[in-house]
Amino acid sequence: MSAPAPSDNPDFTKGDGLLPAIAQDAATGDVLMMAYMNEESYAETLRTGRAVYFSRSRNKLWRKGEESGNVQQVESVWLDCDRDTILLKVRQIGDAACHTGYRSCFFSRVTPEGLVEEGTKVFDPEKVYQKK
Amino acid sequence: MSAPAPSDNPDFTKGDGLLPAIAQDAATGDVLMMAYMNEESYAETLRTGRAVYFSRSRNKLWRKGEESGNVQQVESVWLDCDRDTILLKVRQIGDAACHTGYRSCFFSRVTPEGLVEEGTKVFDPEKVYQKK
Repeated sequence: MSAPAPSDNPDFTKGDGLLPAIAQDAATGDVLMMAYMNEESYAETLRTGRAVYFSRSRNKLWRKGEESGNVQQVESVWLDCDRDTILLKVRQIGDAACHTGYRSCFFSRVTPEGLVEEGTKVFDPEKVYQKK
Repeated sequence: MSAPAPSDNPDFTKGDGLLPAIAQDAATGDVLMMAYMNEESYAETLRTGRAVYFSRSRNKLWRKGEESGNVQQVESVWLDCDRDTILLKVRQIGDAACHTGYRSCFFSRVTPEGLVEEGTKVFDPEKVYQKK
């Protein structure tokens, strides 16, 4: 995909240049994670077909899966009605989007008794993220 | 649902007290919209079982559907691994979450030729939102 015309771009004037981006599994519909994109990461995502976010904690581009190998191949990109939220439908390589090893970052269900973890761990994070 | 213990709550110290909340159709898996919640709207959502957001533009609680009738009945609430994003699985009354009349706010698909609207309009917003 090449970048569309500017008027069809997300409105990066909002949110100090960072917009929320939701990654959804294109096959199952599971919401996998939410992260942020700036204009550069959005353009690189469109250009490469792989999800690239902007890490607020590290203050730099975050090429999802560059360490774990669990990249997200982008099947389609959607904007919401205000053009200030991005939805990616992705194919999650490695079957897990979350650094904890869960398939989705949303594995904690709110119950009256507190959070309950649901779902299964796809990988052991200690084996995937080597200490350096 | 009653509110869970504080340590199981979203981390509202992040994002100036406003956290992104994704509403997903519990039956179809469609991502319907993304909005923001503060602690008060989150607590009211849990207490009432209906989605309540915080409107940044109007700077007040936004009881989704209070004007259109298209409320969201919350079937389950999930937090992500950092406890700074909320996922609601909802039953969307009226079949449309978006004020434009589309089922989902994410009806604009990014293509090399620009945005393409996909999906069907469920209602005519001019008939639902009466001018006052």
